[in-house]
Amino acid sequence: MPKDVLYLKIANAVTEQIKSETLQFGDRLPSLRSAQKLYNVSLNTVKQAYMELESRSLVESRPKYGYYVSQTSQRKLALPSIAKMKISEGKNSPEDLIGKVFGTIAGTDVTQFALGIPGKSLLPVAKMKKCMINVMKRKHDSGTNYEPVQGNERLRREIAKWAMVMEGKITEDDLVITSGAMNGVYNCLMAVTQPGDSVAVESPVYFGILQAIQLLGLKAVEIPTHPITGVDLDALSKVLPKISACCFVVNYNNPLGFQMPDENKKELVRMLTEQNVPLIEDDVYGNIYFGAGRPKPCKFYDEAGIVMWIGSVSKTLAPGYRVGWVAPGKFKEKIIRQKLVQTVSSPSLFSDVIADFLEHGGYDHHLRMFRKKLYANYLQIQKSITQYFPDNTKISEPKGGFMLWLELDKKICTEDLYDEAVSQKVNFAPGRMFSQYNQYQNCMRLNYALEWTDRVESDLEKLGKMIKNRIY
Amino acid sequence: MPKDVLYLKIANAVTEQIKSETLQFGDRLPSLRSAQKLYNVSLNTVKQAYMELESRSLVESRPKYGYYVSQTSQRKLALPSIAKMKISEGKNSPEDLIGKVFGTIAGTDVTQFALGIPGKSLLPVAKMKKCMINVMKRKHDSGTNYEPVQGNERLRREIAKWAMVMEGKITEDDLVITSGAMNGVYNCLMAVTQPGDSVAVESPVYFGILQAIQLLGLKAVEIPTHPITGVDLDALSKVLPKISACCFVVNYNNPLGFQMPDENKKELVRMLTEQNVPLIEDDVYGNIYFGAGRPKPCKFYDEAGIVMWIGSVSKTLAPGYRVGWVAPGKFKEKIIRQKLVQTVSSPSLFSDVIADFLEHGGYDHHLRMFRKKLYANYLQIQKSITQYFPDNTKISEPKGGFMLWLELDKKICTEDLYDEAVSQKVNFAPGRMFSQYNQYQNCMRLNYALEWTDRVESDLEKLGKMIKNRIY
Repeated sequence: MPKDVLYLKIANAVTEQIKSETLQFGDRLPSLRSAQKLYNVSLNTVKQAYMELESRSLVESRPKYGYYVSQTSQRKLALPSIAKMKISEGKNSPEDLIGKVFGTIAGTDVTQFALGIPGKSLLPVAKMKKCMINVMKRKHDSGTNYEPVQGNERLRREIAKWAMVMEGKITEDDLVITSGAMNGVYNCLMAVTQPGDSVAVESPVYFGILQAIQLLGLKAVEIPTHPITGVDLDALSKVLPKISACCFVVNYNNPLGFQMPDENKKELVRMLTEQNVPLIEDDVYGNIYFGAGRPKPCKFYDEAGIVMWIGSVSKTLAPGYRVGWVAPGKFKEKIIRQKLVQTVSSPSLFSDVIADFLEHGGYDHHLRMFRKKLYANYLQIQKSITQYFPDNTKISEPKGGFMLWLELDKKICTEDLYDEAVSQKVNFAPGRMFSQYNQYQNCMRLNYALEWTDRVESDLEKLGKMIKNRIY
Repeated sequence: MPKDVLYLKIANAVTEQIKSETLQFGDRLPSLRSAQKLYNVSLNTVKQAYMELESRSLVESRPKYGYYVSQTSQRKLALPSIAKMKISEGKNSPEDLIGKVFGTIAGTDVTQFALGIPGKSLLPVAKMKKCMINVMKRKHDSGTNYEPVQGNERLRREIAKWAMVMEGKITEDDLVITSGAMNGVYNCLMAVTQPGDSVAVESPVYFGILQAIQLLGLKAVEIPTHPITGVDLDALSKVLPKISACCFVVNYNNPLGFQMPDENKKELVRMLTEQNVPLIEDDVYGNIYFGAGRPKPCKFYDEAGIVMWIGSVSKTLAPGYRVGWVAPGKFKEKIIRQKLVQTVSSPSLFSDVIADFLEHGGYDHHLRMFRKKLYANYLQIQKSITQYFPDNTKISEPKGGFMLWLELDKKICTEDLYDEAVSQKVNFAPGRMFSQYNQYQNCMRLNYALEWTDRVESDLEKLGKMIKNRIY
């Protein structure tokens, strides 16, 4: 029996056990070594079988702990629906709503589900402080001098080292330091478009991308996006001739949480290379995987230099440092020139501090703990939503990151709900923020990268009650 | 005899003494109190007389030391000439030259006359370090959190306090923190123009402004500029109907060093208000005066909110911190929104460090020492140029800041000279960098904010020889 069929046989057997509820949510699968003996196959075959089960969303790997039957194997709530392509409809920018939501972010007594960054208690604050003090002691100029325009060399070297997922395809010379990932997105858009051009984005789309597109006088084309596999490549291919650039978040998408399958990434890059359309890939969540390992970025499949790969430490270490980077492929010189004009150079010190942390601050340890905590939070929030929210609530299935997307009953307007929630000291990001059209009014994004307390739990219960009161 | 005529009488008397060389370069005028007794007039009348002499460039005040007969009273070298208006001629961006010059900036064994920032030895490096360590100890989040988009409140308050020159017309609420002044210029241009619009600039113009204009798809209109009084208001008024914004450096202009007279500033603001044309005022050198006090910015005369006043600490404290600000008048909300999209917020910590320094780091003391040193350097470099450079060298007469502009013999191409100079470990900024047209080829900008050593002196002698060799 050939090997590839062997692993499928095992995967199918386990699938049956799950369907029949012999294996239930939370049950641990036999360890790889036990399964190897159990089925009398090679370790690799077992691994393949488990990865297949993972890709079917039936099991979830928890690094160092093994494989568990996932809740989604018997999910009670449906997946969010896919929006249709809208091109001719009148646009309606959600600027005011975005302004309103950002206005409540400062409130320290509000449970912050709206923010796009992790809570302070999840960040290695003390270690960052130590790194900063060490750097200050070491630097003769106290950071008063300019950095090179391309960015601090040591930091670029450390980022290249940490880009193991690229298997050596990225060197320090390929990278440009930016003021956070948003600054990278903004500059990449600027480098590859002219005012009036069209840019393809996911729908729902992270509002920062929409705002950058508007600011640069560009048009956003929202492509239908599947909550598990990402942007609809057929739909994209149809509009591609009119598109000047794509801007996607393919790993642990904000807000949908999906991880685009590798074959889709490959196909996407192939399509774009053929049509010579640059891809701006915002990969800030890539290291926050719940599965077995760090997913490949599209950049990995890019031979022509058309993928501009963006990262940052804002989602894992220090949002306030504003340290991001981009590997802009063939557009590198343009990006460097733009940076020089816009801001001369990056602030110094922070680059050294992050380089220090990446080199010997235990970034891998921190990421491990961070992922574990986020995965636990994800299971918690999923459970709470299932428990407290109406049964017709649709819920995304993030494979990493810390964003959850909910689609509520059609009667619910989350923009109205927002005001009630804030008055009760809870917030969230209303769905309307994630499109240039009047859609997603019954959706919301929740950030679960916060310390999980009884207050958080009871706030979700409160939210659920508010929603039920509006439906019945 | 009316008072106003009285002060003129005294001023004219002193002028005669200077013309007849009774008073010579470097001589100290009687102190204000001595002169009061001498002429038997009020203290104010003497002050007015001395200020009149200052405005005639016959005397220079040196804070705490009194008034001295200036070298320009008997200047040997002429002032640079004023370029004619060029509109129809083909443009030719000096991008490659700028890239080349920035490429040599890293060389630590090169005498750096090319840079636009002060040498490290002139900056309060140790004090900045102390402030940074204090801030690190104090901050609970180690700066990992976001700042408000508009910018750190404490910093804005300190900047407003330090804006004494505005006589209370600026509050913390009027200010937005930017990533250095260039980022302010870039964002102001973006806020008040559309691609294709025309922006009036001085000529010669700081190349950063030209680059920002190009990057945003705008057209620069170079206005003839007088080396003592600044932009030619008549020339400006003729093109104003076609102009969408002005971007000027009126105090200690880069590269010409002039301080636009107050009456011109008033007239400029009046003209622009009438035509509703915004003025982007880059005032980063305003605190580096050689005269009696800080000159007024155009913003002071702005009632309509059309002046966007830009400052930074890059020229006086810490270029590498990238801390600047803008008081954008009626365009404030637009600037804040742009900032949110481009970079979310400013890096934290640096804002607190600068706020700390402004509050109790002795900024006034530092500025006093810094100005004294720069003025001494100015007299030194002026003397060296007079001594070592050909007699037909024309030289600017900076009233502050640290930039000197030279116009050499027509035969000299400073772009060629640059290569020879760099091979001999000296650099400077070739004049061609300061225009979009093929002009100023025989000009150069020298930065004299460096530690004045024998090496600097002998490097100027070397430069002088190179130039003489090319003429004769």
